[in-house]
Amino acid sequence: MIHTNEDTIAAIATAASDAGIGIIRVSGSKAVSVVSRFYQNSKHEYDLEQHANGTIRFGYFCDAKGNLIDEVMVSVMRAPHSYTKEDVIEVNTHGGTMVMQKILHELISDENECRLAEPGEFTKRAFLNGRIDLTRAEAVMDIIEAKSEFALSNSEKQLRGDMRNIIVDMRAQIIYEMAFIESALDDPENYDLTDYSSRIMPMCDKLIRKCDNLLKSADEGRVRATGLSTVIIGKPNSGKSSLLNVLTGEETAIVTDIAGTTRDVIEHDVKIDNILLHVIDTAGIRDSADKIEAIGVEKARKFAKEAELIIYMVDSTSQVGDEDIEILTSVKDKKIIVLLNKTDKEDEIIITKENIQKLLETVGINTDVPIITTSMILGNGIDDLKTAISDLFFNGKLVPEDEIYITNLRHKQLLEKADRSLNLVRDSIEQGLSEDFYTIDLHDAYESLGLIIGEEVGDDLVEEIFSKFCMGK
Amino acid sequence: MIHTNEDTIAAIATAASDAGIGIIRVSGSKAVSVVSRFYQNSKHEYDLEQHANGTIRFGYFCDAKGNLIDEVMVSVMRAPHSYTKEDVIEVNTHGGTMVMQKILHELISDENECRLAEPGEFTKRAFLNGRIDLTRAEAVMDIIEAKSEFALSNSEKQLRGDMRNIIVDMRAQIIYEMAFIESALDDPENYDLTDYSSRIMPMCDKLIRKCDNLLKSADEGRVRATGLSTVIIGKPNSGKSSLLNVLTGEETAIVTDIAGTTRDVIEHDVKIDNILLHVIDTAGIRDSADKIEAIGVEKARKFAKEAELIIYMVDSTSQVGDEDIEILTSVKDKKIIVLLNKTDKEDEIIITKENIQKLLETVGINTDVPIITTSMILGNGIDDLKTAISDLFFNGKLVPEDEIYITNLRHKQLLEKADRSLNLVRDSIEQGLSEDFYTIDLHDAYESLGLIIGEEVGDDLVEEIFSKFCMGK
Repeated sequence: MIHTNEDTIAAIATAASDAGIGIIRVSGSKAVSVVSRFYQNSKHEYDLEQHANGTIRFGYFCDAKGNLIDEVMVSVMRAPHSYTKEDVIEVNTHGGTMVMQKILHELISDENECRLAEPGEFTKRAFLNGRIDLTRAEAVMDIIEAKSEFALSNSEKQLRGDMRNIIVDMRAQIIYEMAFIESALDDPENYDLTDYSSRIMPMCDKLIRKCDNLLKSADEGRVRATGLSTVIIGKPNSGKSSLLNVLTGEETAIVTDIAGTTRDVIEHDVKIDNILLHVIDTAGIRDSADKIEAIGVEKARKFAKEAELIIYMVDSTSQVGDEDIEILTSVKDKKIIVLLNKTDKEDEIIITKENIQKLLETVGINTDVPIITTSMILGNGIDDLKTAISDLFFNGKLVPEDEIYITNLRHKQLLEKADRSLNLVRDSIEQGLSEDFYTIDLHDAYESLGLIIGEEVGDDLVEEIFSKFCMGK
Repeated sequence: MIHTNEDTIAAIATAASDAGIGIIRVSGSKAVSVVSRFYQNSKHEYDLEQHANGTIRFGYFCDAKGNLIDEVMVSVMRAPHSYTKEDVIEVNTHGGTMVMQKILHELISDENECRLAEPGEFTKRAFLNGRIDLTRAEAVMDIIEAKSEFALSNSEKQLRGDMRNIIVDMRAQIIYEMAFIESALDDPENYDLTDYSSRIMPMCDKLIRKCDNLLKSADEGRVRATGLSTVIIGKPNSGKSSLLNVLTGEETAIVTDIAGTTRDVIEHDVKIDNILLHVIDTAGIRDSADKIEAIGVEKARKFAKEAELIIYMVDSTSQVGDEDIEILTSVKDKKIIVLLNKTDKEDEIIITKENIQKLLETVGINTDVPIITTSMILGNGIDDLKTAISDLFFNGKLVPEDEIYITNLRHKQLLEKADRSLNLVRDSIEQGLSEDFYTIDLHDAYESLGLIIGEEVGDDLVEEIFSKFCMGK
């Protein structure tokens, strides 16, 4: 059977493990009639077709032979007032996996009437049927998967339509200009392009700024939503494990995070205020010519390469050496914070901030890299570390702005495309080229932004322009 | 804060992992007002108090400051037309664990208004508020945990009230007789006890038969519901793993069930028609004086001791020996099925059914034990094995009767108690003792049965009797 968007579909909508309540959702033109065959009301009558919209009723779900499967609550939401804008029935059952599966099994027993929904198909229909745009559809999945306060609240903003509204607004400005140029070329008597470039230039700048701001929010948004992958490197005994202990709090038993003998790294999720760090403690970096040790170093280097933040731990009471240079060289393009540890051992300190700065210079690392003196034993320097992270990744603001952040890679890529097109428009204007030179770039920007919200543009673009601008002409 | 049944309670009612929909359930006199503080309708008005009963509406769940947490569907079921017979609100959210927890967190932020529900507390309230008796309340949990068709359908019968009806019926008969005796002793002019024993005796027999039948269903019911713990024993190379392979079907990779080197047994759930077997393949039984081997044998013996069914596998092409006798002796009180395997190797067979029978006699095992010739290579004998299991545990009926089975240990114990009390009544009647001798036993039976459905009897018993019998007197 070929799946189409006209099929009536059903699926278990709650998580598939035992719980008090489970929901089987059915959507499509046959939803009411399909469920009707199995649902009896509290008086054991088959009357689902008569149920009023937006009601929830107690009754019995029976198999095709009329044998009771479970007592249920059934809610009826007819088109277009439903999640999918189609007829939707939700069957609330006792949430045992067996009972949910049995009810689902009955509902999809005749594939011509109702089939198993594909993953995300209910939300896809909400999009296809025009209830929500693509960004809102994507927000649904992000909400479900949200693992931090930020991720949740940002996704809710997106679901509310904040992202869509920004894009719609940008597109409206672009299409206005496109339509104006088009009209002027068509009908120069009524539309004057004199001095047009001085009018479109500020608009173009504004849109580029908007794009840039959104793109700037993307990295921060992603990090805020999913966490910052952080690798602690340094020689043994420099205090790496102590740092992890301090960050996770005393009560965290690091030992339990060591997943056996085959791994030589410890991973832990740590929260610094609102920021989630995925911290990897590379226990493997040692100054050794030993073959096995070398594998450890190689592994640490690999993790460091993939990290977004490197915390380089230095024991201030111990000489730095060639291996420090080697390791720092391999991470020199990363965002680095250096911790100069064990400053509680005042009498033994032999490495100073200046020494580290020189070391960084040697390696060719920007000397703006924050160097923080710490004492894991006293817990000193942690606040400075927080500030440094905040400065490096969040413009110094640990608490996010009340604006929407781009967290979706697809959105980011399309925004970059739109940004490039708008910059081409800018270039053309600066070079004094005529308007028809850059309508194609305007069109590209319009299209890229449209793809974010799921609006494809094609032949109807012309129509749209004229319906907007040439009314009554 | 001391928890009372008057508190308004809330909990996540769906399973706690990410899914399309999640439900937070709130019950109690403050349910509507508590949710009202957070719920806005589609026009962003706080109007939940006005929502009609039995309706489900789209809206927004916001935190105390009015910030959106999630788009939700809210259903309103006011007392007494709800699961608990209290006001119940169900908040359907996007089923992410984070978003569900956040909403729950808001709802229980003021413990004086609404607190976290205890496990099972919604159903407890349904019982306390008289919507369902204890057997139906227990059925809810059984339905959720049902792992077989039988368990589910039997629990649904119990939820429907089948168990309750049987108990109520039995109690009605007992209380009738108690009331009659009581009345006759009180008012001998109107109630005549002459020949009473010949009237009560058949009733008593009938009730005892009813108890016995229910109790007989208990073992079968439990096995049908939760499966039959089965241990395959036998020497290496007798074909035990092949049997497991044949039972689980070719596609089952037994190898993946070996959970490492620390275990020397393989466990697998196998379905024979409607019957679930928890099969343990004791790979450890070997004829060896080796110390480690001895531990294996000890372990196998331990598993065998706890099993309900022993499948003893014999290689018909290999001599039986002392260790067979030893092992069989240790399981001689169990239900045993002997499989005489490798009968495809016709020329090499040296052990016959008769040999096995002699072996069983030596050990002192009933020679009624089924001995089945099998060939795992040809797949022969499996049907006979099924029949033997069915005969041993299910009176030859693999498909259960359309009656309710006792699957609850509490019910079983109380039925046994009632059974004992009724037998005492019977004894008293047979001994020609006067009626007041056995009213106490009748009362005990009545009470034990009452505890099954959750009805405690106390001072009100007298009242009940007189309200029934002495109307207008």
